[in-house]
Amino acid sequence: MSYNALPLTKLIEQFASLPGIGMKTAGRLAYYVLTLTKEQAEEFAHCITDAHQKIKNCSVCQSFTDSDVCNICSDTSRDKSTICVVESPRDVAAFERTREYKGFYHVLHGLISPMDGIGPEQLFVKELLLRVSNDDVKEVIMSTNPTVEGEATAIYLSKLLKPMGVKVSRLAYGIPVGGDLEFADEITLFKALENRNEI
Amino acid sequence: MSYNALPLTKLIEQFASLPGIGMKTAGRLAYYVLTLTKEQAEEFAHCITDAHQKIKNCSVCQSFTDSDVCNICSDTSRDKSTICVVESPRDVAAFERTREYKGFYHVLHGLISPMDGIGPEQLFVKELLLRVSNDDVKEVIMSTNPTVEGEATAIYLSKLLKPMGVKVSRLAYGIPVGGDLEFADEITLFKALENRNEI
Repeated sequence: MSYNALPLTKLIEQFASLPGIGMKTAGRLAYYVLTLTKEQAEEFAHCITDAHQKIKNCSVCQSFTDSDVCNICSDTSRDKSTICVVESPRDVAAFERTREYKGFYHVLHGLISPMDGIGPEQLFVKELLLRVSNDDVKEVIMSTNPTVEGEATAIYLSKLLKPMGVKVSRLAYGIPVGGDLEFADEITLFKALENRNEI
Repeated sequence: MSYNALPLTKLIEQFASLPGIGMKTAGRLAYYVLTLTKEQAEEFAHCITDAHQKIKNCSVCQSFTDSDVCNICSDTSRDKSTICVVESPRDVAAFERTREYKGFYHVLHGLISPMDGIGPEQLFVKELLLRVSNDDVKEVIMSTNPTVEGEATAIYLSKLLKPMGVKVSRLAYGIPVGGDLEFADEITLFKALENRNEI
């Protein structure tokens, strides 16, 4: 794209390397950045390096935090008996948005995927087992995604955790609230039927 | 969102301030940035400030460039007799992608819009008139968007340019190639019918 100046082309490529951003959107974003004031552009750039430098894994749950222990793990009002195991820090944010879950989390930072060469040793499994053995944990909720890797990881972890005397549960399958039955796949509909509740 | 660390929240807000990026996508992008290596994150931040510092308006056509005169304006093989007037530098990129237009451009950096308090004096109209009066320009193609503001700007400029002895033309209206007649609006379809060509 010789009709774009090099610094602009480079910025477009940076935006295009982000997930879900194609070349057209990247172009729109890059042109938008050029319309910002000098201070705004510098603030944007600073936020990227700043977040990248300051954010690290919580020493307890492995979620993202800028201190040693994250806000959730240092909240003594939460229920110590429950740990919700998730794939990524984004899943923690998703659960927090429900404002209903009051237990703690554990972030694996991935799922077991032999196809991609990812085994339990690449994930924060050891740290989870240590927490369960030390703390007063009564239940571990497997909240990995309902995919092949998510299921496999949930089953693998449950086999390690059950002998430690804790209850291991899995998120319920069913139709999403506000969804349309017509578009639900067969397995979801079957699970929804199977796990039906009396009203 | 107290469950996100402050630097992360700030980064999400920065992404969310970009056009067409909602809070969910912003979150996805910010979390992705945290998975980059230190070098990649710094390169991204650098590209933003670098593009913002180095990119300026071409002294001839007012499009974005990192030198005094842009690649297109300094290309002597192009057709000096034609100037294509567009709203923004992104439109220049769109025309260049056709690989068919060989003339020059002029970027107005906006459209006349009395509702938003934008008059001709806020746009690069003076510079266009100067170019038309000095150079060997034979035709000015009004390539502003087919909106109320785009039309008004095209008509305003044509009234200034015609007395200078140049041909002033407007992009053709019609059905977009690959489009579906069913979804074409009445005005577009009427224009396509009106401007039909013999085959």
